[in-house]
Amino acid sequence: MLSRVRSAVAHLVSSGGTPPPRPKSPDLTNATSALPTAPLEVPKSPSARAGSGSTAPPKTAEARASFSRPTFLQLSPGGLRRADDHAGRAVQSPPDTGRRLPWSTGYAEVINAGKSRHNEDQACCEVVCVEGRRSVSGVPGEPRQGQGLCFYYWGLFDGHAGGGAAEMASRLLHCHIREQLKDLVEILQDPSPPPLCLPSTPGAPGSSDPSHLVGPQSCWSSQKEVTHESLVVGAIENAFHVMDEQMAQERRGHQVEGGCCALVVVYLLGKVYVANAGDSRAIIVRNGEIIPMSREFTPETERQRLQLLGFMKPELLGGEFTHLEFPRRVQPKELGQRMLYRDQTMTGWAYKKIELEDLRFPLVCGEGKKARMMATIGVTRGLGDHNLKVCSSTLPIKPFLSCFPEVRVYDLTQYEHCPDDVLVLGTDGLWDVTSDCEVAATVDRVLSGYEPNDPNRYTALAQALVLGARGAPRDRGWRLPNNKLGSGDDISVFIIPLGGPGSYS
Amino acid sequence: MLSRVRSAVAHLVSSGGTPPPRPKSPDLTNATSALPTAPLEVPKSPSARAGSGSTAPPKTAEARASFSRPTFLQLSPGGLRRADDHAGRAVQSPPDTGRRLPWSTGYAEVINAGKSRHNEDQACCEVVCVEGRRSVSGVPGEPRQGQGLCFYYWGLFDGHAGGGAAEMASRLLHCHIREQLKDLVEILQDPSPPPLCLPSTPGAPGSSDPSHLVGPQSCWSSQKEVTHESLVVGAIENAFHVMDEQMAQERRGHQVEGGCCALVVVYLLGKVYVANAGDSRAIIVRNGEIIPMSREFTPETERQRLQLLGFMKPELLGGEFTHLEFPRRVQPKELGQRMLYRDQTMTGWAYKKIELEDLRFPLVCGEGKKARMMATIGVTRGLGDHNLKVCSSTLPIKPFLSCFPEVRVYDLTQYEHCPDDVLVLGTDGLWDVTSDCEVAATVDRVLSGYEPNDPNRYTALAQALVLGARGAPRDRGWRLPNNKLGSGDDISVFIIPLGGPGSYS
Repeated sequence: MLSRVRSAVAHLVSSGGTPPPRPKSPDLTNATSALPTAPLEVPKSPSARAGSGSTAPPKTAEARASFSRPTFLQLSPGGLRRADDHAGRAVQSPPDTGRRLPWSTGYAEVINAGKSRHNEDQACCEVVCVEGRRSVSGVPGEPRQGQGLCFYYWGLFDGHAGGGAAEMASRLLHCHIREQLKDLVEILQDPSPPPLCLPSTPGAPGSSDPSHLVGPQSCWSSQKEVTHESLVVGAIENAFHVMDEQMAQERRGHQVEGGCCALVVVYLLGKVYVANAGDSRAIIVRNGEIIPMSREFTPETERQRLQLLGFMKPELLGGEFTHLEFPRRVQPKELGQRMLYRDQTMTGWAYKKIELEDLRFPLVCGEGKKARMMATIGVTRGLGDHNLKVCSSTLPIKPFLSCFPEVRVYDLTQYEHCPDDVLVLGTDGLWDVTSDCEVAATVDRVLSGYEPNDPNRYTALAQALVLGARGAPRDRGWRLPNNKLGSGDDISVFIIPLGGPGSYS
Repeated sequence: MLSRVRSAVAHLVSSGGTPPPRPKSPDLTNATSALPTAPLEVPKSPSARAGSGSTAPPKTAEARASFSRPTFLQLSPGGLRRADDHAGRAVQSPPDTGRRLPWSTGYAEVINAGKSRHNEDQACCEVVCVEGRRSVSGVPGEPRQGQGLCFYYWGLFDGHAGGGAAEMASRLLHCHIREQLKDLVEILQDPSPPPLCLPSTPGAPGSSDPSHLVGPQSCWSSQKEVTHESLVVGAIENAFHVMDEQMAQERRGHQVEGGCCALVVVYLLGKVYVANAGDSRAIIVRNGEIIPMSREFTPETERQRLQLLGFMKPELLGGEFTHLEFPRRVQPKELGQRMLYRDQTMTGWAYKKIELEDLRFPLVCGEGKKARMMATIGVTRGLGDHNLKVCSSTLPIKPFLSCFPEVRVYDLTQYEHCPDDVLVLGTDGLWDVTSDCEVAATVDRVLSGYEPNDPNRYTALAQALVLGARGAPRDRGWRLPNNKLGSGDDISVFIIPLGGPGSYS
C-alpha cells in the first residue's frame, strides 16, 4: 500500500504553520516491519481444514520474524529471496505442479519497488469446514454426523506500517468466520426462515411464535423477516470485529504492528459474499460485463462519516484538527476572510468567515491517492492500527477507523456462468494503474488464448494483470507500455472462476 | 402524509410491556392543525419576484388561521371549500385560463380521505431573481446593472402533525435559497473556477494564489477544485438549514406546529438541482427511461445513521430506547435467550443473549410504511418538528431528524429533450400506490394523446397521476381499478417538462 501511511505534521498543525518537507520515499514502515517474535494467539478452535492453498502459520518464532509469503506459493528459500527482491520484482504464482488452489483459482503477486523492506500484502485461500456448536434442538456439543458446512474462502490483506496485521489476518480471519458460523450450521441448512429467538437452555422452546407479538396496531404488527443470507453477512461482519479485537489484545502484548485492508470472499450454499474493508477492489467480469463487487473506503469516500465523528466527539481531534474541510490550507493571514468549506452535512461547498480554529489542520484533506485522514492515513477501514498515532503527537487515529466491511452478495445460481466469467480481487497496487475496463479487456484477451478446460488459464490471467500493473524497468522506473509509471506498490491478484468445467473442484 | 406520526407508547416502553391498541384512524394531527395566527417572520429581503404560480403569504392573521392552498390554484371561496371536502376528494389544478405556470408546468393535488382536517401538502412554483449582495471586486451594496441571476423553483412540502411547517416552507424556502445565492451571483456567471477565498474588506485581494500553499510533499500539494455546481448544491443545503433554524425560532414564539418533508427543484444556468429531505420522490422519465432523481429518508433507509447517533449519544435515548434493532419486540420472559439483532455497524443479523436493557423499545422498528423512529415518526429528514416529543414523554425527537437534503444534479444541456420528457415530483401519496414504471406508462399514455405543443398536456398528466393514485369511491373506500385500496393520503404532483416547444417560457 504505497504511501498510505505518511508522516504527519502535528507539531506544526496546531500553530497553523507550514509542515516540513517530507522524505521523497517515505519509509516509516521499515521501523515497524519486523514480524512479532512470539507465537500469536489463535482462536480456541483453530482446526480449519486447510485446502490446497493453506497459509498455515510459520512454526517457529524465528520463521515468524522473517519475511513470509503465502504457503500455497510453495517457495523454496531461494524462491523466497527472489520474491523479496525489489530490483527484479519477479511475479510469483503457485507452481503448476502439485495440488491446485480450489476452483482452479489463479493467483499472482509481486513485491513493491522499494517502498517497504518486504511485501506487506498477504493472501489466503482455504476450504473451511464448520461443525455446529450445538444443534438447534438444544443439545450442546452434540453435532449430528454429516451436518457440517464447508465454505470456500479467499482473502487479500494489504498491510501498512508493518506487516504484522496483514500476516495475522491472513492466518486467522477465516477461523473467526468459522467461529461465527458455528451457531448457524443447522439454521442455514434448514429451508424454513431462521428462528428469531433461540433458547438459552437445552430443550427450551424457541420463541418465534407470533402470538408473542404486541398489538396489531403497533409498528410491531409483523415480525421482520430475516434471511439466511443476512445471517451469513452478520457472521462475516462480526468476524471482522472479533479479528480486530484480537489484534488489540495482541497489541497490548506488543505483538502486532501496523494495520491492513482486508478483502475477503466467502462462497457458501450457492452464494458469493464479498466483504471489503479498505481500498482493495473486487469486480466480476461476466460475459464482458463489469459488475462492481466492492467499493473503496478512503478519507474522500468516508469524509462525512469522519467529519460527523469529529463533530460529535471533538475530544478525538485533540485541539489539533478541525472537522471542517477546506479546499486548501488556511493561512493565518487570511483570518477574517471568507474561505470555501464543507462540513459533515454537506456535499456542496459554501463560503465561511475564517476564524481562529479554522487554522487547525483539517481532519480530511487531499484528493485521490493523496487524500489523508489526520494527515496520516489514506484508508479509513481495515484491521489493526491500534498503535497508530498522528506523527509527533499522542493522538490516536484508530477511533476514526472502522473495522467493519461492506458485504455484497452475488447469487451464483441465478446465472449460468461460462469458463470466462471470473471474480477478480486485487490490492490497490493493481487498481491504481488499471481501470475496471482494462481488467475486463485483459480477461478477454488472456482467457481466449487458452482452452476452456486448461486449469492454468486463471493463473496466467492473474500474472498478466500483475505484470500489466507493474510494467517493465525503463528510464529509472517501472513503466507501462504507454510510458506512464507502473505501480511501485505491492500487487496481489486472485482470479476466481465462476463457472465452467472443473472450476467447482 | 398518512400515519407518518403516530401515537407512541413510551409509558409502556421502559417497562417492556404491551402498548395499548391505537385508534384505527389516528388523527393526532387535528389537535395541531390550526395554522399560526400571527404573521411569520420572513427573511430580511423577501422581494422574490413572484412568477405566475406565486404562493404569496395570506395577508391577514384571519386568513392564515384558515385552510390555505397554493395561490396559483386561484381558488374562489367556493372552490376552496370543495378542495377541502374529504368526501368528494375533487382533484385541483390551476385553471387553464390566465397565466400558466413557468415551463407550462403541470400540477394537480387532492386532499386526503380524512386522516387530517385539511390538506397538509403545500406547493410552490416561482421564478426567483437574485441580485448580488456585492460584486467580487469588493464594493458592497453596488451590484452592477444586469448582473442578476434568475432561477426557476418548484417545491412540494408534505406536512405532518399540523400544517404550519409545510405552509411556512412553501412561502419562504425559495427566499432562503435566494439569500444563499446572493454571494455567488458574479462567481456563478464567471467561467473561471470559483475563488477559494474571498476578501473580507473591499478592495482586498482574493487569495486563490497557489503560492500560499504548503510544501509540495504534503497532502496539500494541490488545492481542491471546486465547481460552480457544488456551490449551488452548498447554497441549497444551507438554505434548508436556515429554513429549519427559522422554524425553531418561530417555535419559541409558538408559531409553527408540525414538520414537513421538502422536495425542491431549482433550475439555474442549464442545470436542474433536485433536493429531497423526506419521503417524497422525483423521477425523470426520458424517452421512456426512468432516471431516479431522489431517494427516500425513512427509519429503514437511515437506520444506521440513527443507531450511530443513539450509540454515541445515549442520553438522547432517555433510558427509554435501545439503539439495537430486533426483528420483533423482545419479551421480558425471553431474558437470557438469544435473539437476532443488528447494530449501527451491521447490515446482516446475528444472535445475541438478551439482557435487561434489550427490553427497552428499539429506536428503529417496523418495515415499509410502518417503519417508525422512536415509535413515533416514519420520516427521518425534513423541516420543523422542533416540538415533536415521544408520546407520553418529554423526550425530543428532533435530534435524530436531519434537515439536510440530498441534492442530485441533472445537466439539461447534455441531452436533447423532446416534449414527452418530464421530471415528475410527487408526495408519498402518489408513490405509496404507484410504481416508477406505472408513472412512466402513464406519462406515455397521457402525453401521446395530446399535441406536443398543447400547453394543457402536463396538467392533464398530473391529474391522471393523482386520479390514478386516489382511485374511485367503492366498497366503503377509495379503490383502484384492480380493487386494491387507493391512497387515502394527501396527493400532490408536479410535472416539469424538460424540453419541447414552449416549455422554456
